[in-house]
Amino acid sequence: MKIALVQQNYHIGNFEYNSGKIIEGIRQAKEGGADLAVFSEMSVCGYPPRDFLEFEDFLKRCYASIEEIKSHSAGIGVIIGSPAPNKDPRGKDLFNAAWFLYDQEIKAVVYKTCLPAYDIFDEYRYFETAASWQVVEFQGKRIALTICEDIWNLGNNPLYKECPMDHLMHQHPDLMINISASPFDYDHEEDRRAVVRQNVLKYKLPMYYCNAVGSQTEIVFDGGSVVYDAYGNCTHHLKVFEEDFQIIDTETKYRPVNKHLPVFTSASVLTPDQIIPYLTRRNNIREIHDALLLGIRDYFGKMGFQKAILGSSGGIDSAVTLALACRALGSEHVRAVALPSGYSSSHSVEDAEALSKKLNNPFDILPIQPVFDSFLSALKPYFNDMPFSVAEENIQSRSRGNLLMAMANKFGYILLNTSNKSELSTGYGTLYGDMAGGLSVLGDLYKMQVYALAHYINRDEEIIPASILNKPPSAELRPDQKDSDSLPEYDLLDKILYLYIERRKGPREIVAMGVDEALVARVLKLVNTSEYKRNQFCPIIRVSSKAFGVGRRMPIVGKYLS
Amino acid sequence: MKIALVQQNYHIGNFEYNSGKIIEGIRQAKEGGADLAVFSEMSVCGYPPRDFLEFEDFLKRCYASIEEIKSHSAGIGVIIGSPAPNKDPRGKDLFNAAWFLYDQEIKAVVYKTCLPAYDIFDEYRYFETAASWQVVEFQGKRIALTICEDIWNLGNNPLYKECPMDHLMHQHPDLMINISASPFDYDHEEDRRAVVRQNVLKYKLPMYYCNAVGSQTEIVFDGGSVVYDAYGNCTHHLKVFEEDFQIIDTETKYRPVNKHLPVFTSASVLTPDQIIPYLTRRNNIREIHDALLLGIRDYFGKMGFQKAILGSSGGIDSAVTLALACRALGSEHVRAVALPSGYSSSHSVEDAEALSKKLNNPFDILPIQPVFDSFLSALKPYFNDMPFSVAEENIQSRSRGNLLMAMANKFGYILLNTSNKSELSTGYGTLYGDMAGGLSVLGDLYKMQVYALAHYINRDEEIIPASILNKPPSAELRPDQKDSDSLPEYDLLDKILYLYIERRKGPREIVAMGVDEALVARVLKLVNTSEYKRNQFCPIIRVSSKAFGVGRRMPIVGKYLS
Repeated sequence: MKIALVQQNYHIGNFEYNSGKIIEGIRQAKEGGADLAVFSEMSVCGYPPRDFLEFEDFLKRCYASIEEIKSHSAGIGVIIGSPAPNKDPRGKDLFNAAWFLYDQEIKAVVYKTCLPAYDIFDEYRYFETAASWQVVEFQGKRIALTICEDIWNLGNNPLYKECPMDHLMHQHPDLMINISASPFDYDHEEDRRAVVRQNVLKYKLPMYYCNAVGSQTEIVFDGGSVVYDAYGNCTHHLKVFEEDFQIIDTETKYRPVNKHLPVFTSASVLTPDQIIPYLTRRNNIREIHDALLLGIRDYFGKMGFQKAILGSSGGIDSAVTLALACRALGSEHVRAVALPSGYSSSHSVEDAEALSKKLNNPFDILPIQPVFDSFLSALKPYFNDMPFSVAEENIQSRSRGNLLMAMANKFGYILLNTSNKSELSTGYGTLYGDMAGGLSVLGDLYKMQVYALAHYINRDEEIIPASILNKPPSAELRPDQKDSDSLPEYDLLDKILYLYIERRKGPREIVAMGVDEALVARVLKLVNTSEYKRNQFCPIIRVSSKAFGVGRRMPIVGKYLS
Repeated sequence: MKIALVQQNYHIGNFEYNSGKIIEGIRQAKEGGADLAVFSEMSVCGYPPRDFLEFEDFLKRCYASIEEIKSHSAGIGVIIGSPAPNKDPRGKDLFNAAWFLYDQEIKAVVYKTCLPAYDIFDEYRYFETAASWQVVEFQGKRIALTICEDIWNLGNNPLYKECPMDHLMHQHPDLMINISASPFDYDHEEDRRAVVRQNVLKYKLPMYYCNAVGSQTEIVFDGGSVVYDAYGNCTHHLKVFEEDFQIIDTETKYRPVNKHLPVFTSASVLTPDQIIPYLTRRNNIREIHDALLLGIRDYFGKMGFQKAILGSSGGIDSAVTLALACRALGSEHVRAVALPSGYSSSHSVEDAEALSKKLNNPFDILPIQPVFDSFLSALKPYFNDMPFSVAEENIQSRSRGNLLMAMANKFGYILLNTSNKSELSTGYGTLYGDMAGGLSVLGDLYKMQVYALAHYINRDEEIIPASILNKPPSAELRPDQKDSDSLPEYDLLDKILYLYIERRKGPREIVAMGVDEALVARVLKLVNTSEYKRNQFCPIIRVSSKAFGVGRRMPIVGKYLS
């Protein structure tokens, strides 16, 4: 049997577009002589559809798409993902399902068993868990068909009580097919291949694994679909971060494409000294780079925008954001604006200008001092002679945010946010000021990772000037201000933040790793008391295993470590 | 047996505070001769603790609190709510549990079966479902102890496959106790009493139902704990929207406190013409009023703030917000600022001033024209002679937001947001401008409900001047602007929004109810394309069954009805 893995980039709720892609994939598979075309999880409506699933109208459109796709299945098997109704009155009304179409009929509908409800996932919000399992017979083969998380339930401490492959093995399948919408993070790709391999070795069957690709708001799906033979060898892998297509003949013996799994440090066993090297290692940064390009490109493309604007301060964060945006959208579509105040160093504007010269993107200088002064005069009757404080710092930042948003509104740009994860964690940013924007590019990268990404961008030639890379970080909102006046050095700060945010370590555990107790208490308090700020922040392109946003749900009103 | 229902207001993660309250409740129960003191769901840590549950440190503090509370249980039974570890390696690591303490021992730990994962609830994210059920024997009584949602699983289309009370009935219990953290919405209180009554009638046992009270960020728990006898009579009810305490003797025959359930219109069967009357009916508005007061008071109290600031435009939304804030926080703690521009009508400032005179709260006038002009001059080189557009409207709104935030930062206010649900639904508001603020008071009320609430506030005397109530709504961001230039009339708009947002009706269903097709398409598109704005909005005090925020999760990048 010849199986086509069709790795595509869908648009949530854009049924016509998604069906068109799927039908084109079927055509291509037929043309290549495939017997079966496999698409990813929820390919019909895009993943994750979230609360659109509560709309009967949305579901009807899913089912109408299936009807249409079915009409293109003459002589070829087609596996697509879509919700399916639960006919049992007990339990939730829907299943997350794989629809097996063949010869213009629905041959089988297979339901997902393991419904992820952690991090960014909310599947139990919508779906009922499968309670029976049945292989699909097709072209003389017995196919064990599962959906994404269904194959992740191995190990000593399984998150779910049922393991669908264990049940399916009683029916003596010949091969496994898994359709996924498995998101990227810099820990995850290697995990995923390890999991596919673990399944292959456990069940002694080959696996055909088809993943989604493309970014949906903040979640990047990286593709990287694979085929493993029954002996744990990867025989085929599709591209990462882009669409791809391959036809594999189940009867051919293929040579392994890489004999060994990549050797990787399991992030969960890192010693404190290994954290920063792990976060900034080249392989992670390269993947993050590619994920961010896809994240920017898809956000703009799917929102129907072409052009970005951002504040270019001469600092590292805006420099990296600008370089990425230029690569993702084309330099001519990214407008950089330097917004100097009286507290900006002379180098700031020069560095920003040199960067845009290098990138060849539109660049403007818009001094904020007159606007800042007008705010100060308006507030003079109230502020009187009170000392300069965070209020005045924030006015500058918000003047910039307001000017950038005015440009965005007038000319149809999306404002790109340039905050990094270290700042967002500690609340070192101004709501409606430097925290403004439609999309955060670096909000899931700690400062040390932003540096590493800058060096990666400069790997072949100096795009980001050395002066930007080497200056001490500063918000430049008061004379001679440095980040280090308010925050610990970033290599130490990022380590504490990583332990607390990604690894969910408590204060006692972090102190036990040798970090100063008062510092730990101070940093964790900053994180927890800044929840109200992050709650109003824009979507962040997710690249870590724990990004701020939908995947991290914290009370705003609380009193824990704060 | 004498049972004390202890209805308290907890603070998430504030273990010392919560334990102190519980221990004080035990003391009071002992003093009243109670055999058993019953507290609400998750009383130890506050509900909902969200992702704090992923921290081992947080769980240890829960268990330490239980130890402390246990030491106060000499001679009295105590039922408290807390997470509990799942000792089975399969499934999630925690249960949502009721801990039964007695005589300084843990007598029983009962697990929750029905884990809500809809709307604002994420319990399946953290907890495993109970798989066995056991009554607790205490003082010669067999107690069927359940947790919140466990008793909501009746009816023909149950959301869950297991019904814990059905299992417990095999063990012949004498009475039912349910501990809850069941939030308020204007549909819900009546539902809740109907559900308690349904259980009592089904199982022919009395029920002692203890609910939490207090607001946690956006979710208002309204208390209203009740006792029903085995015949469906409500014999005791505790206060709504405040802490309360009652001791009930299980052996006494009590007279029903209200013979009949309140007659109410089930919102799900409303005809289109009944929607606005239902949304604005007196009883709903009264409850909403009380919920909003509690929501404001708890947000400030639990965040450690006393003082609020808000922009007072002379319009209905800011007037109602101001009146509520003055009532919740004390007039002297609420600063109202009129921020007129050249487009503000002469009445606006006068009306705002008259309102603050009536409310006796601090009032200032801060004209924004000089700030607005400074933005226009700064942008002149780019905007040149382009026509006045939404960019200029937004600059005014953001100048106001910036001035208010500057005052808030300088003097330690929280900025109250004054947007209503009709505006938020349609994106009729400016990000970082009138959408700024730390807490949204009216964000879950449609405009027609804001009017009804204004009339309710004026029920005894005219607090909100008639001129505010009677003027046509306007954003006053360009000459002679009216909301009705951009939006349909609010009685029609709110009806469409309610059907789409609360009732999840699709366009075809709404059109079938007699609403113009083009209008429906336009309104639904406005809703869906404004998701990116609401995503950056502050917490909204939730009063409806479907508020924007954590309870409504929508893709930002999508293409459904948009």
